[in-house]
Amino acid sequence: MLKKSSTSLQTKCAPADYFTGRAWIDSLVKNEGIPCNAVKVTFEPGARNHWHTHPKGQILIVTAGKGYVQKKGEVIQPLLPGDVVTILADEVHWHGATADSIFTHIAIQLISEKGQETSWLNAVTDQEYLGG
Amino acid sequence: MLKKSSTSLQTKCAPADYFTGRAWIDSLVKNEGIPCNAVKVTFEPGARNHWHTHPKGQILIVTAGKGYVQKKGEVIQPLLPGDVVTILADEVHWHGATADSIFTHIAIQLISEKGQETSWLNAVTDQEYLGG
Repeated sequence: MLKKSSTSLQTKCAPADYFTGRAWIDSLVKNEGIPCNAVKVTFEPGARNHWHTHPKGQILIVTAGKGYVQKKGEVIQPLLPGDVVTILADEVHWHGATADSIFTHIAIQLISEKGQETSWLNAVTDQEYLGG
Repeated sequence: MLKKSSTSLQTKCAPADYFTGRAWIDSLVKNEGIPCNAVKVTFEPGARNHWHTHPKGQILIVTAGKGYVQKKGEVIQPLLPGDVVTILADEVHWHGATADSIFTHIAIQLISEKGQETSWLNAVTDQEYLGG
């Protein structure tokens, strides 16, 4: 059993290679002996991650602000605090903040047998982000 | 992909068979196609769950109040909002509120190949709860 105190967490800027706009990541669980990692992500207004998949799936739990999630080929869905999203293995999707609000969620990713949790794809274009 | 709106969640009383005192459970993710379930649990002051194990492990993310977690044979550890606990497969442990505070955490359990996520054991006695 490992307890991480909130005071020990360190916020890092999300990698620009996989995000449009700026986002901030607190690593909560990272390779700690269970096949599951967890992060807290805060997106600045308008920020979102690239299209991506998870080989074993993901859970999002919204904790603050207003955001979006979209599965490829489906409509953009709005997200508010307390909403929960289950993303199945290999579903192409993105998530991020609305243009007028920060957006924070906890994200839990299952880790594959090969140690992978995310495969990144193309950026979400402004047209896609605006629902075009 | 499945989105559950916070307005659709329903709070249920935690089963008395596995809890001492009263606790309240919101099911966030339950058998939705990934090998991982999630709940939000609010313990009333003094309430705690029984000793138990998870066949594939668990993550706790504290969201409100003051609580405790204890692994069998180790000291009781205090928990505050923002703290994160990773519990490995088959570690005997319990968690719950302090005597003077509610305590809320998100709990994510990995599901075994047999579909199990928790094995319940004996109640945590008052002596154990008080750190005796």
